Amino acid sequence: MHYPQSLQTLIDALKRLPSVGPKTAQRMAFHMLEADRATMAQLAHALTAADDALRDCGRCRNFSEADLCGLCASQRRDQASICVVESPADLVAIEQGGGYNGQYFVLHGRLSPLDGVGPDVLGLDALDERLANGEVEELILATSSTVEGEATAHVLAQMARSKGKAVTRIAHGVPMGGELEYVDASTLAHALRGRQPVQAD
Amino acid sequence: MHYPQSLQTLIDALKRLPSVGPKTAQRMAFHMLEADRATMAQLAHALTAADDALRDCGRCRNFSEADLCGLCASQRRDQASICVVESPADLVAIEQGGGYNGQYFVLHGRLSPLDGVGPDVLGLDALDERLANGEVEELILATSSTVEGEATAHVLAQMARSKGKAVTRIAHGVPMGGELEYVDASTLAHALRGRQPVQAD
Repeated sequence: MHYPQSLQTLIDALKRLPSVGPKTAQRMAFHMLEADRATMAQLAHALTAADDALRDCGRCRNFSEADLCGLCASQRRDQASICVVESPADLVAIEQGGGYNGQYFVLHGRLSPLDGVGPDVLGLDALDERLANGEVEELILATSSTVEGEATAHVLAQMARSKGKAVTRIAHGVPMGGELEYVDASTLAHALRGRQPVQAD
Repeated sequence: MHYPQSLQTLIDALKRLPSVGPKTAQRMAFHMLEADRATMAQLAHALTAADDALRDCGRCRNFSEADLCGLCASQRRDQASICVVESPADLVAIEQGGGYNGQYFVLHGRLSPLDGVGPDVLGLDALDERLANGEVEELILATSSTVEGEATAHVLAQMARSKGKAVTRIAHGVPMGGELEYVDASTLAHALRGRQPVQAD
């Protein structure tokens, strides 16, 4: 069946959202047209406004409306450590965890020479400059545990060591509350290798 | 954690889409901002264009850019029957089924006096006028098998009978290829009550 042109174009645009297929896109379009016309204007406006306003923070490369994002501009954050993450979503996850109060650096990807993603795309020059700052003591590597994430972590570690900084990698292991029998073999092997001495009470 | 204002507004707008929660909305926003900026402008434009262009067809109340939708304007559709559906999505489902070549009427809802949805909201006056046309022979009721859908079907049937038109209800029963043991009791009871004589070969 043929939809009117503007409806087909809307469905096609919605399909470009992650994990939205043809059926869901149609449902979204029909829902807005039938029951929630106000959302169409609001969403259109929000998309345009966000596209215009948001760029990378000049320091940590997180999304920001100003030259410096809120985290970089804050006086209450520890200046001694920089946590390197692959994406803004990873940064949000760590912030929501609540256990970290230092600085960040967002790579927007991971080293992948075959896809043309080299150190320049990830902004490693800028990170190198920040490491030259005497205030920074530790680089925390929170890249993913994929092959490319590990390779990226390796390069970052060399970079930080050459500047005489401490380098740490976030722990990979059994999730809190996770049942051993449901944890995959590779995570379990990693958890065993990364075992820690138990302190006496 | 606090997002920049324009990012928070975008996430809130995306959350208004059906079956999109806070986590999915964040993922959609981050995906577009990180990897697919082009989609932001395209989707904003498509939303505005569809909101501006689409209204109800003056005859069947399906979404249309013109006064008459493609189905109503077509010369190749049978004029003798009108199939009444609750929503444009239901119309699409029947069209995709491919077994029907007549006219439609979209209620955009079902009778629900407690929610203020009366005959006027569903456009029953317009349907009544169409039934007055001598070309129309049959009204096919494809409203849902909910209490409200059945009540709506009942009212529509009275309307059509008062004009001397044939009235039919689409069959409810065991889905094609469905296993009896997995069909719910109410559908099964309906399928038994609606049993049809088997023709001799």
